[in-house]
Amino acid sequence: MITRRTALTAAAAVTASPLLGVIPAHAAPPPKAGTQAPSFFRYKVGDYEITAIGDGFVQRPLDGFVRNVDVADVRKTLTAQGLPDTHIRVPYTTLVINTGSKLILMDTGNGEFAPAATTGVWMNNFTAAGFKPEMGDTVILSHFHGDHINGLRKKDGVATFANAEVMVPDAEWNFWMDDARMNAAPDAMKGAFQGVRRALGPIAKDVKRFAWEKEIAPGITTVRADGHTPGHTAFVIASGKETMMFVADITNTPILFARHPEWQVMFDMDPAQAITTRKRILDMTSADRIRCAFYHGPFPSVGQTSKDGAGYRLDLLPLQDAT
Amino acid sequence: MITRRTALTAAAAVTASPLLGVIPAHAAPPPKAGTQAPSFFRYKVGDYEITAIGDGFVQRPLDGFVRNVDVADVRKTLTAQGLPDTHIRVPYTTLVINTGSKLILMDTGNGEFAPAATTGVWMNNFTAAGFKPEMGDTVILSHFHGDHINGLRKKDGVATFANAEVMVPDAEWNFWMDDARMNAAPDAMKGAFQGVRRALGPIAKDVKRFAWEKEIAPGITTVRADGHTPGHTAFVIASGKETMMFVADITNTPILFARHPEWQVMFDMDPAQAITTRKRILDMTSADRIRCAFYHGPFPSVGQTSKDGAGYRLDLLPLQDAT
Repeated sequence: MITRRTALTAAAAVTASPLLGVIPAHAAPPPKAGTQAPSFFRYKVGDYEITAIGDGFVQRPLDGFVRNVDVADVRKTLTAQGLPDTHIRVPYTTLVINTGSKLILMDTGNGEFAPAATTGVWMNNFTAAGFKPEMGDTVILSHFHGDHINGLRKKDGVATFANAEVMVPDAEWNFWMDDARMNAAPDAMKGAFQGVRRALGPIAKDVKRFAWEKEIAPGITTVRADGHTPGHTAFVIASGKETMMFVADITNTPILFARHPEWQVMFDMDPAQAITTRKRILDMTSADRIRCAFYHGPFPSVGQTSKDGAGYRLDLLPLQDAT
Repeated sequence: MITRRTALTAAAAVTASPLLGVIPAHAAPPPKAGTQAPSFFRYKVGDYEITAIGDGFVQRPLDGFVRNVDVADVRKTLTAQGLPDTHIRVPYTTLVINTGSKLILMDTGNGEFAPAATTGVWMNNFTAAGFKPEMGDTVILSHFHGDHINGLRKKDGVATFANAEVMVPDAEWNFWMDDARMNAAPDAMKGAFQGVRRALGPIAKDVKRFAWEKEIAPGITTVRADGHTPGHTAFVIASGKETMMFVADITNTPILFARHPEWQVMFDMDPAQAITTRKRILDMTSADRIRCAFYHGPFPSVGQTSKDGAGYRLDLLPLQDAT
């Protein structure tokens, strides 16, 4: 560290070495950095240490994003929360659960298949948090959309988590791995089916398929949450006397769809069922004061929901309220 | 990175080298880390790049924290926001403003005089953000409480920011540097006067003293905000078409005192005037949609205030909404 004392010493050195010429009074301000701290954040549930790992965000236009309301209403909801009303940012946040004996990953992010330059940073953040891919014992998937499963396998086909068993919702598997359904799907949807095969096909014989309302790992219980996709699953995570839920995509961003649970995001495959699921789970987490981790909320995407008017408010866990 | 392929190679190597014995299937889960990412966060105001730098937090008991309400009411406000109702965490967040030609620091954190093990991390975060103390051109102080000024000078007396000019509120200087007032102060308050002398005494002839409602650096204008202390000052930061305010301690934590502007935190020296100031500024930032950086909010402690019932809501800037 340069102090006045060392600066004086440096000045004396300059005097002794005239070729160096005039040293400016001090360093110029650094260039504007434009960089952020790595997106990881730890908190505890009982004896479990959870680490939220961000995979950046995608910025989307508002047109068409919410199916059943005017863009003007979407703008109003954004403005009320101090956000720009020209676009919506949709972040991605996975969980790593350290139970003390196992490292369990909940969803995987976009991996090497990032749809924009503002995402595809999951591995950097996972590594910055002190993890290595080979440490993963279990990967649990909430559903089979690409932003949740593409981290499983690299572009060259090699599995990212070489030592992990992969656990998937049975109803999700039955839907997406049905070749007849893929062949009958509209062209715009065929890519989604093919993506599932790319990520999961090579381990089709090894994946563990799970039903709803089952404890599939110590303290981790599956919860029916269909609508977003046919097999979309939420998870209760319990340790000691504490309980939280990973609610995955019961909302896209809670900024819009927790506030307005009847709004339909363009990605919900069965919008009516998605609304039923959304209200059922948010009613429960709000009334029972259960901490929720969302997949698409502002980082760290975990906090407390509360009933607020016709919708729900999400108070994010303060970043300092750590471990 | 270990892949299945390299794992197989490693297994082959084991076969060729029987002394190594059995390699476990994979690495054990890492110990629970308990560590967080460095607390810095960048955003833009026009051409200026702002970096919020955290200095951790202090955890305080609720008893006596709010002067004029029952602890039960404080608990209720915490619970409503999904927070523990057994204590309050008070974080510290300073600003670094890179104007492109100058590096301006707004307040300095606790420096080497951390009152708890959960604070005193400012220099780590400042360094992690890519800054060095000698880069600072200007340090602007909002007021003279220790958590704002103690970063100015190390325990050995050496100035932390060797090249920076220090700018202070004139009314604050007049109050705290008045020896007669110090001598007449109750013993419990003498330490505060002495702390001001420790931090600022050695540069008494060099500090630049400023009045309210003046532009004291390009785009930075002082705003009267007394009550918390006699010279407490807020700052408008303007660049291009954008404007924000550094409101410093017009609230202690906005979690309590923006929601309830008439609540009196134990640290407000003139509680009635502090309430007047708090309402005047929060009315303005809410009505005019001016982004506010607080000193004691949850990191990154910057966002949009909105009138909400009898108080104000703070929607923090999403961490992804970066630069």
